[in-house]
Amino acid sequence: MVTVVPLGLKPALDRVAADVDRYFDHLLALPDDARRPLYEAMRHATIGGGKRMRPLLVCAACDIFHVDRLRAMRVSLAIECIHVYSLIHDDLPCMDDDDLRRGRPTVHKAFDEATAVLAGDALHALAFETLADPETHPDPFVRVELVAELAKASGPAGMAGGQMMDLAAEKETFDLPTVTRLQQLKTGALIGFCLEAGAIMGHVAQEGRTRLRGYARDIGLAFQIADDLLDVEGDTGATGKAVGKDAAAGKATLVSLLGPKRARQQAELLVDQAVAHLSSFGPEADLLRAIADYVVARDR
Amino acid sequence: MVTVVPLGLKPALDRVAADVDRYFDHLLALPDDARRPLYEAMRHATIGGGKRMRPLLVCAACDIFHVDRLRAMRVSLAIECIHVYSLIHDDLPCMDDDDLRRGRPTVHKAFDEATAVLAGDALHALAFETLADPETHPDPFVRVELVAELAKASGPAGMAGGQMMDLAAEKETFDLPTVTRLQQLKTGALIGFCLEAGAIMGHVAQEGRTRLRGYARDIGLAFQIADDLLDVEGDTGATGKAVGKDAAAGKATLVSLLGPKRARQQAELLVDQAVAHLSSFGPEADLLRAIADYVVARDR
Repeated sequence: MVTVVPLGLKPALDRVAADVDRYFDHLLALPDDARRPLYEAMRHATIGGGKRMRPLLVCAACDIFHVDRLRAMRVSLAIECIHVYSLIHDDLPCMDDDDLRRGRPTVHKAFDEATAVLAGDALHALAFETLADPETHPDPFVRVELVAELAKASGPAGMAGGQMMDLAAEKETFDLPTVTRLQQLKTGALIGFCLEAGAIMGHVAQEGRTRLRGYARDIGLAFQIADDLLDVEGDTGATGKAVGKDAAAGKATLVSLLGPKRARQQAELLVDQAVAHLSSFGPEADLLRAIADYVVARDR
Repeated sequence: MVTVVPLGLKPALDRVAADVDRYFDHLLALPDDARRPLYEAMRHATIGGGKRMRPLLVCAACDIFHVDRLRAMRVSLAIECIHVYSLIHDDLPCMDDDDLRRGRPTVHKAFDEATAVLAGDALHALAFETLADPETHPDPFVRVELVAELAKASGPAGMAGGQMMDLAAEKETFDLPTVTRLQQLKTGALIGFCLEAGAIMGHVAQEGRTRLRGYARDIGLAFQIADDLLDVEGDTGATGKAVGKDAAAGKATLVSLLGPKRARQQAELLVDQAVAHLSSFGPEADLLRAIADYVVARDR
């Protein structure tokens, strides 16, 4: 599939990544008291790493509706706060017990477990503080809607619920619909919010919102399959984290249930479907189209 | 000191406690899928225990400004979500490593560590979801202000920051001003929000807000001294949790720095000061006055 990328995905990604780093550097200025290690741990986890896929999605969705870049960046920061807090807690010894993340020591390795728990908690609160600030949007209704949707996407009916299902997946073998639902909660809900946020800030009517949700659902799942494929086929050097963990844990994934070949086909189908949801948008949605393709191509 | 308690503190506390349980029971209905253990853990931690001091403070502050009871209860639930998540994470082996809380096994003992981390995270998100819901208040500006203040009170510049200082207190000996600041962040910020929430929902002018903040600051510190005294003087049967932990960890507390006698005098002074902040209010603030007295009396 050939997609027109007027801005180019690489420059867009690089710009978003640089902006996210710069904003976090500002937001997490080191305090001159005993809270310092907490901020150092938060900085370690947020600055200078990660694909910044979620901020890119926010900015791409905001571009469609000509939402101010500063506002898009503040929502991006909030989402990264949630995403990163979940990674910090996920990496803990009692969870996935990972030593490496984004090619660097995980927070509990670089600091200690207690600091890792608190750094995750602090980023969690910071996400909502960031959204609720008038700098994010002058309209309180928009701000509180962003808060409501992010809280739903990350709470027990969203990401945290999906993580619980993921723990259960180590003990019982889930079927395809259950693993699909697990992934939709664990990673899909937050990706859905990235697109939803653009629609909320752009005051988009219901139909446009439904299309963006469809796009998010499809690329979310494709993204997860690509991640699972990396876990099976990737190497630590390329991914910056330990590989083969799901298989070692005997966990059913979309890839283990479908097999790598059908899983890849499924991911490509999902990408086509995702792009089809954007058919009513013009070239202003080209960045979203390019991202959809990138999702399945990024590890090859 | 004799305080008129028209409603009576005990009935008010009992009513709030029963309401909090009932609302949590409704809010945390068990789902029929693999997320069930997450909800069970959240229910274990939130229902049927605790002094419910924070919800009582919210309701007492709301009473002054004739704020609807349902609204006061929803804010109370949000605060309890935050308070309880912090207890769950605080009890983890990598933090305080406590087996007992409110006379029952802590969440990581009754379930496991991973479930405890997730249950805390899920309650954290649920707090903001609850505040952002239109049922909490019809005015989006009020809702988003509640979110902003609760996020600040619980994040790195509030509770999480105080907990980080608390970890540092195990390694270095803090002086009185530093321990005071630690406590103001760790427990004072959230207690401050309880009063602030009443003022926000009651659309109170700045002066009333400043008075309530003063009250909150003073009883927050008195509350902490009373807690520290319980840790020194209490027994597990009465407190429902392990005692003598701070002394064993060699941690400086307001009680260890002042000695039990001066600490108790200080708490009583703070209570008088707290009540003085309420002088411009009439009998509608009597419940707050009674709470202030109860704070230092509750363990005797």
